Amino acid sequence: MTEREPLSPLSTSFPSSRKVSAGELEVPQREIALTNGEVLHTYDTTGPQGHDPAKGLPPRRAAWIARRVARGDRNFSQMHCARRGEITEEMRFVAIRENVSPELVRDEIASGRAIIPANIRHPELEPMIIGRKFLVKINANIGNSAVRSSIEDEVEKLCWAIRWGADTVMDLSTGKDIHRTREWILRNAPVPVGTVPIYQALERVGGVVEDLDIELFLAVLEEQAEQGVDYFTIHAGVRLPFIPLTADRVTGIVSRGGSIMAKWCLAHHRENFLYTHFDRICELMQRYDVAFSLGDGLRPGSIADANDAAQFAELETLGELTKVAWEHDVQVMIEGPGHVPMHLIRENMDRQLESCHEAPFYTLGPLTTDIAPGYDHITSAIGAAMIGSFGTSMLCYVTPKEHLGLPDRDDVKAGVIAYKIAAHAADLAKGHPGARERDDALSRARFEFRWDDQFNLSLDPETARAFHDATLPHESAKTAHFCSMCGPRFCSMKITEEVRDMVQRGLSDKAAEFAAGGGELYPSEPVEPRRG
Amino acid sequence: MTEREPLSPLSTSFPSSRKVSAGELEVPQREIALTNGEVLHTYDTTGPQGHDPAKGLPPRRAAWIARRVARGDRNFSQMHCARRGEITEEMRFVAIRENVSPELVRDEIASGRAIIPANIRHPELEPMIIGRKFLVKINANIGNSAVRSSIEDEVEKLCWAIRWGADTVMDLSTGKDIHRTREWILRNAPVPVGTVPIYQALERVGGVVEDLDIELFLAVLEEQAEQGVDYFTIHAGVRLPFIPLTADRVTGIVSRGGSIMAKWCLAHHRENFLYTHFDRICELMQRYDVAFSLGDGLRPGSIADANDAAQFAELETLGELTKVAWEHDVQVMIEGPGHVPMHLIRENMDRQLESCHEAPFYTLGPLTTDIAPGYDHITSAIGAAMIGSFGTSMLCYVTPKEHLGLPDRDDVKAGVIAYKIAAHAADLAKGHPGARERDDALSRARFEFRWDDQFNLSLDPETARAFHDATLPHESAKTAHFCSMCGPRFCSMKITEEVRDMVQRGLSDKAAEFAAGGGELYPSEPVEPRRG
Repeated sequence: MTEREPLSPLSTSFPSSRKVSAGELEVPQREIALTNGEVLHTYDTTGPQGHDPAKGLPPRRAAWIARRVARGDRNFSQMHCARRGEITEEMRFVAIRENVSPELVRDEIASGRAIIPANIRHPELEPMIIGRKFLVKINANIGNSAVRSSIEDEVEKLCWAIRWGADTVMDLSTGKDIHRTREWILRNAPVPVGTVPIYQALERVGGVVEDLDIELFLAVLEEQAEQGVDYFTIHAGVRLPFIPLTADRVTGIVSRGGSIMAKWCLAHHRENFLYTHFDRICELMQRYDVAFSLGDGLRPGSIADANDAAQFAELETLGELTKVAWEHDVQVMIEGPGHVPMHLIRENMDRQLESCHEAPFYTLGPLTTDIAPGYDHITSAIGAAMIGSFGTSMLCYVTPKEHLGLPDRDDVKAGVIAYKIAAHAADLAKGHPGARERDDALSRARFEFRWDDQFNLSLDPETARAFHDATLPHESAKTAHFCSMCGPRFCSMKITEEVRDMVQRGLSDKAAEFAAGGGELYPSEPVEPRRG
Repeated sequence: MTEREPLSPLSTSFPSSRKVSAGELEVPQREIALTNGEVLHTYDTTGPQGHDPAKGLPPRRAAWIARRVARGDRNFSQMHCARRGEITEEMRFVAIRENVSPELVRDEIASGRAIIPANIRHPELEPMIIGRKFLVKINANIGNSAVRSSIEDEVEKLCWAIRWGADTVMDLSTGKDIHRTREWILRNAPVPVGTVPIYQALERVGGVVEDLDIELFLAVLEEQAEQGVDYFTIHAGVRLPFIPLTADRVTGIVSRGGSIMAKWCLAHHRENFLYTHFDRICELMQRYDVAFSLGDGLRPGSIADANDAAQFAELETLGELTKVAWEHDVQVMIEGPGHVPMHLIRENMDRQLESCHEAPFYTLGPLTTDIAPGYDHITSAIGAAMIGSFGTSMLCYVTPKEHLGLPDRDDVKAGVIAYKIAAHAADLAKGHPGARERDDALSRARFEFRWDDQFNLSLDPETARAFHDATLPHESAKTAHFCSMCGPRFCSMKITEEVRDMVQRGLSDKAAEFAAGGGELYPSEPVEPRRG
């Protein structure tokens, strides 16, 4: 699909699927109908379809929020509700979505081990939860840059990213239309939207980093919170004393927000104003229930810089700030790297859990090597799957264009799918209940030569079908008991069907003999026969 | 590049690179010239260029082998030489290639912990080593099937696969021209070539599995060994008593060779003839120094079947056969799965090392989920990187077409690059000496905005450059101190340059104060300032 074509309908991407909803809260699911009469339900991030983007999605949370206002609530934070024992609609919604009890959701939110990013000004949201007892989530970055891209592009990128399974999106826009772009995205986003408010703050001061201050920053936060942004990346851990620790790095400071704050600190010879005024930031965010994504401004940008003193000094500070945010009932997740070789990944998870009191971890990859620009969705999917299996709650995607250029539609899809793979592989590794159901359904379809089911159960049915049809285009091949890889004579699955029949016949014939032989079938064979 | 175009010259794929050779054995390397005057040498699998495929490559090993014949050798196995203390040319060659001592190579070969697959009838070979103290290697499968493909296609696929870094290729052809295809591939292969001889044996008996026998099989082995095949996959571990263990699997037996042998065993109610006549197979292979790749015919074909009784029963048998092969001085590696969720991967490695006496492990992926047909190069690169970091010596690639169709040129490249990433990530994780050099060089280039160097140091310079140019096509952007991802104002690397300057000025100004303040720069700042 080229850039300027309108998006295809959902049914083109997911044949034999339909959107259904569960329970009185109408929790979205996708139902895949199989040719053998079975159905499989999958988690669905695609949101309501067929709405005019200029009008936005229906405000499904509006009544829930209105009730809380009516009863006189002043603190709308999910953490606040959870701590006083309340199970909100958002908690019930995610409990159904995750197939767990609402009490588990409440307890995880109350303890800070999970968050539901859900600004009260974002009523279009279909709530979701980020925490290590739940499905591993993925984030897709969208947002224009000063160099290229338009608002319409960004809304389409949003819809495209959630079609393939993005659980949240971050709007990283830095251009002139930053406010309007964000408004369009929020009004059309059934998923939480995150931002990095320092970008807009810097726009306000004409790009002069030294002119940033807390009053300006709080004004930007208020504007974005009013619009409905669900989580803010805030680089409050880039403390002045840590900056010299980056001086000998191969790639210095690679976080945009981190480098802005570092420059401000050094220019003024003062401590980071986000750190010194952290309480005021918390107070503002509490009023809307905006969650923190505490930014890792000093994350390593190369294998050489992984797990260094600067990175871990900042992590300690993020843990300190987590406790402050929790005093305000503000939900927190912690951002993590970056570029990390495989053998250093676990230390990141272990130290994060310890330093940050089990607040959810949200990592960018990590990339496990620097040598493959153009393929960093793969270098990072390896690290993402690993750190996800160790307990990271959300994985920020990386596209093939990382380090090189702006992702287009194909890149967004490639990034999201690579990360769905990583997240799902992690769910399997964690033994998440029900995670294997789709793998098993697909493998059974594969073994039984139900080609259409194999395609339709996959993350990307159109591509799977197209790859099959590239070699065997005829419709009859969709029911054939072989494929082009081996051809009819050598198909192992076909031979296995025969073997299985023989085994089953053999097993009934020989059952007694088998038992007598101590588990060795056909004990008449010599024991060490290979020297024949 | 479409299928029918001739391959582009190497210089198109790798600008600013040239082939060089090291030492009197002329060990190939690729030298990448950087714009700052530095050069980087990389391992090079591309082989001699510009030869007529109909004539084949120059026989660089011919003189080495002739000398051994002249001195009256009867046993040509590298293991035999190593065990009597000899360092062959092949061992010296790989020692230079890996930047290790020839003695280490010899000792690893002698112990069976590494192999140099190098048939004396394959003089065109540039020797390479497979073992866990050396760089992790990757294999690419080529070979036609009954359904499609031609001989010319296969030789081009070989050249294409080694261009991107395949260390060995397996010719899995099953069609009519099986002998001639293999001849073309071998005469043009600077890398070891592996085969699965049971496929040709089955051709010989018209596809009637029951008609297979050891005499026929040995005749096929002899034919292929005479041609110069360097390693044989032989499914001698698919023992009769293990077959019923697969009856309750979700995907039964997915190995083609495994299913053929299982069918034979059950049809005759007899033990696998490859097992019962294993000594005769060893005797033949010793004469040519063909290495075993002991096939995992019972590998799991789905997440559900991973690490089951059938798989591990076979693994035990492969260990038993390893000892027999070693008695004949025949080199051995052990094939491994397949489909394995992340949390079960380490057990595969640990059990393989124990059961198979540290013979090198050679795994297919493993795929870490079943739900992404069309993207199995990614599902499996995750598992491959992990098992590589645990000690697997060679990774068999998986292309995006796995389970769906025949890989074309783009698929072969995508598979090889995904596996170079996995292998290199594993080398980094193992702390392989020198592995990080390329990462660091690329990261320095990135940080210093040497765009051309960043492209040229990458695994796929053409793609990296094209991705960059998609957003910023002008030549001036190749020296610009920003990229399209952030634009000029927000480039973190650019800001970091400024930060670094400030830190360096600040450090000299404040050095004394810093030391006095116990490591906290600017100690005049309040200690817990955030509550401002």
